[in-house]
Amino acid sequence: MKVSELSARSGVPLPTIKFYIREGLLPAGARTGKNQAEYSQEHLERLSLIRALRDEAGLSVAAIGRSLAAADRAEPEHFLEAAIDAIERPAGAAVDVRTADFRKAKEAVLSVARSRGWDVEDAAAAVHDAARALAVILRSFHPDATSFLEPYADAVWSIASHEIQEGWRPDAAPNAALRFAVLGTVLFEPFILALRRMAHVARTRQVTGVTKKAGPAKSRRKA
Amino acid sequence: MKVSELSARSGVPLPTIKFYIREGLLPAGARTGKNQAEYSQEHLERLSLIRALRDEAGLSVAAIGRSLAAADRAEPEHFLEAAIDAIERPAGAAVDVRTADFRKAKEAVLSVARSRGWDVEDAAAAVHDAARALAVILRSFHPDATSFLEPYADAVWSIASHEIQEGWRPDAAPNAALRFAVLGTVLFEPFILALRRMAHVARTRQVTGVTKKAGPAKSRRKA
Repeated sequence: MKVSELSARSGVPLPTIKFYIREGLLPAGARTGKNQAEYSQEHLERLSLIRALRDEAGLSVAAIGRSLAAADRAEPEHFLEAAIDAIERPAGAAVDVRTADFRKAKEAVLSVARSRGWDVEDAAAAVHDAARALAVILRSFHPDATSFLEPYADAVWSIASHEIQEGWRPDAAPNAALRFAVLGTVLFEPFILALRRMAHVARTRQVTGVTKKAGPAKSRRKA
Repeated sequence: MKVSELSARSGVPLPTIKFYIREGLLPAGARTGKNQAEYSQEHLERLSLIRALRDEAGLSVAAIGRSLAAADRAEPEHFLEAAIDAIERPAGAAVDVRTADFRKAKEAVLSVARSRGWDVEDAAAAVHDAARALAVILRSFHPDATSFLEPYADAVWSIASHEIQEGWRPDAAPNAALRFAVLGTVLFEPFILALRRMAHVARTRQVTGVTKKAGPAKSRRKA
């Protein structure tokens, strides 16, 4: 199809399509003449993916570009992981990865993963990020690293098993798999964290016996 | 103690202490003369809390100020919740809270909480945040809201129960409780999310039979 048809069928304005091509989010069409190029079904699917990542996941064009470029560069069996890893997360406290704290944290993360038979590379970005966060936790709370990790690993495994059902083929249709994996990771993160805060409140009240006040609930939410 | 002693004992420079007082993070001392004020043990503890939130949780002075002000304003039994709720989180996709999507999401969140006997106010910020995230999920994935939430609620409850042990008294020493609650919430968030990404990779490989490549692991981590 011509670019005008791509625009009509995707609902994405022509200048925006050209912008996505310039920014590397969308591959250029196959040239068929001096000012003409041919676009395929895959371009249509990629546009739909870009819009979903922008409108549904709330990602910036720069973040989408980094994520898709990482997926395009990765070996086929790692493209989902690469796309997800490329989405930047809040930095949190600084951790020097050359310190003993970081090495100890990384060993603890890998040890809990290996004891469960998780097939994850030592050099994976998620392992690095988990170790980085854990290094700060160890520094602040000094817990016994090996035992206190177990319930977290159990909890995320039950979540991941629920999310990735038997028979799911990540290689079925790359753009659809990317949409599912990136949206599924990004959209559920704030949900899981907010649910954990709810559970904290409920659990604290259960343990301490301090309950909510009688009378109409007062919203502490800022406008 | 005089402010000079407060500075010496806390290790926080005098100009920084004055800055924290101006910004409302630290209460002013009790005036004892024209240019003199008396500081207490509580000032020392508060300074230690501020430094922990800055250095360990990586929070900005503005974020610490908002969190502590919310805790100071709250009713005593809600001060921890207020401090945690006041820490801003990544916004994600925009959700209009007046829409049917949001109302449906909030009902689903409250229903899963109530079915487990969680004592949480309808107007709590965590409920609002969970509903906001869920509204985007429903819009993007259209799942059956009531049933797919259960494994998430089970997982966060097991995490919260692990984190909030029997006998923990959130009212023991306010500054210590704040440090534990805020750091415990904030520091573990990136850890749990990274661990979930690891579990995704491992679970996907288990389900699809696609495993990691042989040969030396290649780091995809950017320098």
